[in-house]
Amino acid sequence: MSVVESASPPPRARGLYVPVLTPFLPDLSVDESRFLDHCRWLLDHGADGLAVFGTTSEANSLGIEEKLDLLALLIEAGIPPERLMPGTGTCAIPDTVRLTRAAVSDGCAGVLMLPPFYYKGISDDGLFASIDAVIQGVGDSRLRIYLYHFPHLSQVPIPAAVIGRLIEAHPETVVGLKDSSGNWDNTRALLEHFPGFSVFPGSEAHLLDALRLGAPGCITATGNVNPMGIKAVIDGWKSPEAEALQTRAGQVRALFSDRPLIPALKAVMAMARDAPTWRLPRPPLLAMDETDGAVLAATLRELGVDLNDAVT
Amino acid sequence: MSVVESASPPPRARGLYVPVLTPFLPDLSVDESRFLDHCRWLLDHGADGLAVFGTTSEANSLGIEEKLDLLALLIEAGIPPERLMPGTGTCAIPDTVRLTRAAVSDGCAGVLMLPPFYYKGISDDGLFASIDAVIQGVGDSRLRIYLYHFPHLSQVPIPAAVIGRLIEAHPETVVGLKDSSGNWDNTRALLEHFPGFSVFPGSEAHLLDALRLGAPGCITATGNVNPMGIKAVIDGWKSPEAEALQTRAGQVRALFSDRPLIPALKAVMAMARDAPTWRLPRPPLLAMDETDGAVLAATLRELGVDLNDAVT
Repeated sequence: MSVVESASPPPRARGLYVPVLTPFLPDLSVDESRFLDHCRWLLDHGADGLAVFGTTSEANSLGIEEKLDLLALLIEAGIPPERLMPGTGTCAIPDTVRLTRAAVSDGCAGVLMLPPFYYKGISDDGLFASIDAVIQGVGDSRLRIYLYHFPHLSQVPIPAAVIGRLIEAHPETVVGLKDSSGNWDNTRALLEHFPGFSVFPGSEAHLLDALRLGAPGCITATGNVNPMGIKAVIDGWKSPEAEALQTRAGQVRALFSDRPLIPALKAVMAMARDAPTWRLPRPPLLAMDETDGAVLAATLRELGVDLNDAVT
Repeated sequence: MSVVESASPPPRARGLYVPVLTPFLPDLSVDESRFLDHCRWLLDHGADGLAVFGTTSEANSLGIEEKLDLLALLIEAGIPPERLMPGTGTCAIPDTVRLTRAAVSDGCAGVLMLPPFYYKGISDDGLFASIDAVIQGVGDSRLRIYLYHFPHLSQVPIPAAVIGRLIEAHPETVVGLKDSSGNWDNTRALLEHFPGFSVFPGSEAHLLDALRLGAPGCITATGNVNPMGIKAVIDGWKSPEAEALQTRAGQVRALFSDRPLIPALKAVMAMARDAPTWRLPRPPLLAMDETDGAVLAATLRELGVDLNDAVT
């Protein structure tokens, strides 16, 4: 393993990280201009960082080259790399290494890493070997990995035993995890079991509880439309208003619980920005019905969520 | 859709197609020399075609660039493209289009196409739109798609309703399917429901039954080690020996049914070629124990399977 020591490692990620939605043009190529606008709007409205290329970003519907190009675009546009946590995990170690190397060399705060997710029922040893091989392949001491546990979609869970082994083998590198299991018992167990390890809940549904157990923040899809509401919980968790702030954020989140999450978020963006193309996901996802989107956007406004505040 | 008409379309694939194992060097890069040797050995020993970059090939553990490079290697080495059916389906339409275009422009017989497999629980409309978008993106009338139905690993089944819609929309392009469901009832239903559509069972377990219902052959992992035995069933299915040939092929297949398939096949290759590195898969898969591999290879020899015949 060749370790590069060319720059100081990034500080640990904290606060609200948003898996940034990826807007498309009518031909389903990436709308780079709207993507940049949305990134800037998020950073101006409560997001501490951008987990670009997450599930909500439809990262796995983007080609490897597209992701490399978009990351370069963000850096060239002046988005501070220390506020970026790109998703870089693919099925194949070479592609994961390639994306991860780009993120590290750009100075990103860290990477959010899905395990290889094609083969199912893999062993703990095989899962450990996969992440270990990526770390060896990247070979850069600045690398900070936040594991991405999303068993519902990846169908490859990251068990606590593997997390423990990775922390032991790479204590400076494997520093955190996003728990998108939707299972609060799992999040709580990880927070209690691995103190000092940055466990980000993948939703704000139990954010206050998580913060009280030491979570550094959260990484959540609905941060795309309610960044200020979620950030308020993180900033105010020790205040007398903490429960009320959590309740409000939870109400917004609940609006999306029985809707297809990505199409619903995009429909809200389309209404808020008066930009119909914002509705478009890439197949296999399909756009939400316009009427449903309008109802959702109106309900959000009733809850006090205003996406038109200071659009950049 | 811009359609290129630069060459005649390939004939429909028939016979035994083998999802070629991908051998690695100790550093887990592809052992190109052994890969080529194995491809040639298969074509000399019963394989009608090579379904390179299938599940058994660990295609999803190979980077996009690696697959493009390996395909170029095969063509340059003189492997006839009309005997190639590369797997080209990835999670992302741009990568799938890129790989598929390369295969079409090389003159391959067809491509074996997984649907996008990251998002789960997708709609029939979304699945149809995905394959349709790839066809539009490739934009070449020579394209022949064999859909790849492998619900256990992809977790994205291809329902009969979607197959029917794809055939109707693209009758010249969507010409077949590999059914790796392991569910004979599904294979039979597809053969009966879509006459003229090339339904390849993904295993030789029910090969004779499938041939009798019009299957054009099969695409099977164990073709890597028993190509002649499986080819004999295809060639002899109308002969008096048909049942005996099926029984023999089935006995070989059964050896792998309670073993991890890819590591077991690689262990057999390592014994047969006296090449320990043949054992190595890429993570998340792990190599089979050497003792287990030796037992398996010995049992294969007892069944009359001889991989040392005329190694090229």
